[in-house]
Amino acid sequence: MDYLRQFKNECFTIADAKRGDIGNTSEQYAKAFLSEEGDFKFDSMTIAPYMGEDSVKPFTVYPEKWVILLALTSNKGANDFQFIKDENGKPLFETILGKAQEWGTEENLMFVCGATQAEMFARIREIAPKHFLLVPGVGAQGGSLQEVCKYGLNEECGLLVNSSRGIIFADTTENFAQVAALKAKELQEEMASYL
Amino acid sequence: MDYLRQFKNECFTIADAKRGDIGNTSEQYAKAFLSEEGDFKFDSMTIAPYMGEDSVKPFTVYPEKWVILLALTSNKGANDFQFIKDENGKPLFETILGKAQEWGTEENLMFVCGATQAEMFARIREIAPKHFLLVPGVGAQGGSLQEVCKYGLNEECGLLVNSSRGIIFADTTENFAQVAALKAKELQEEMASYL
Repeated sequence: MDYLRQFKNECFTIADAKRGDIGNTSEQYAKAFLSEEGDFKFDSMTIAPYMGEDSVKPFTVYPEKWVILLALTSNKGANDFQFIKDENGKPLFETILGKAQEWGTEENLMFVCGATQAEMFARIREIAPKHFLLVPGVGAQGGSLQEVCKYGLNEECGLLVNSSRGIIFADTTENFAQVAALKAKELQEEMASYL
Repeated sequence: MDYLRQFKNECFTIADAKRGDIGNTSEQYAKAFLSEEGDFKFDSMTIAPYMGEDSVKPFTVYPEKWVILLALTSNKGANDFQFIKDENGKPLFETILGKAQEWGTEENLMFVCGATQAEMFARIREIAPKHFLLVPGVGAQGGSLQEVCKYGLNEECGLLVNSSRGIIFADTTENFAQVAALKAKELQEEMASYL
């Protein structure tokens, strides 16, 4: 993080920490990860929604910092609870997408929506037309970037696409740096082609 | 943790870390917090359920170590999502209490059930009669230990009652150690009176 700070205007940093705790504890996590007095000074961090409002709001108080709330994740276990329909037929992840908009704004709240769930992006955009979406699951997890863009792009782009293992684990030999750079460039070029 | 290890048979240690991530990442958290090769060697850790099976199971593989899964938390935000009823009228936390029993056993899986929700313990015991329950919310958060015991005790006790702020924040003067000890002893004596 010390090294990255010199590229502050080019690099948006995400602590993929998936925190979420009683308010008292969330405040301290927020301070550690996001505040300018903290050790890390990340631009954003991922937050788990299960404990509700007082577990999420403490992360929204730092100016120009972002909460990235889990809504629809890219892993297989997303199917266990996130699609459970309530008495009105609304899946849990849609309730979270809606409710959380009371806790933050389009300027400090994004949602994690996995690329492996690309067919759900049309519905996600009905509920959260303007929020940025963090999209993991492209690359190692097999999600289709083309499908995500088809349904998920909005006027301001609105998509922050992430590939981690597809880049950092692409090569384990001494050619690691070149192969990682190549994979990053390939993904960037594919993204550019859809814009 | 180095210091506590000498009291291994008297102290059960809990990393109240509320982790839960894609399988690949959960494996590494489990290794760091629970494994004998990790830095901490905790006996247990708290886990958030939202990402489902592959986010939880990696924490169940270490012998004699425990997963403590969030079910019904003690904070106000518990009301946002945990009580949402599905199409059959079953609240989300009950679905989690049931489903998670496919991922662990009575010997490696506990559930967080907050003392502030004492009236729910009868229902919790119908779904999970034998699992240990970790009960925060006594003390600073105002939960009633008497009510929790009335509905939550099972043949083997089955309750692990936690007070953190009620003890460690009980006094901020130089008498801190004595007051903390007194508060811990008071709680222990109250617990003993219900057994």
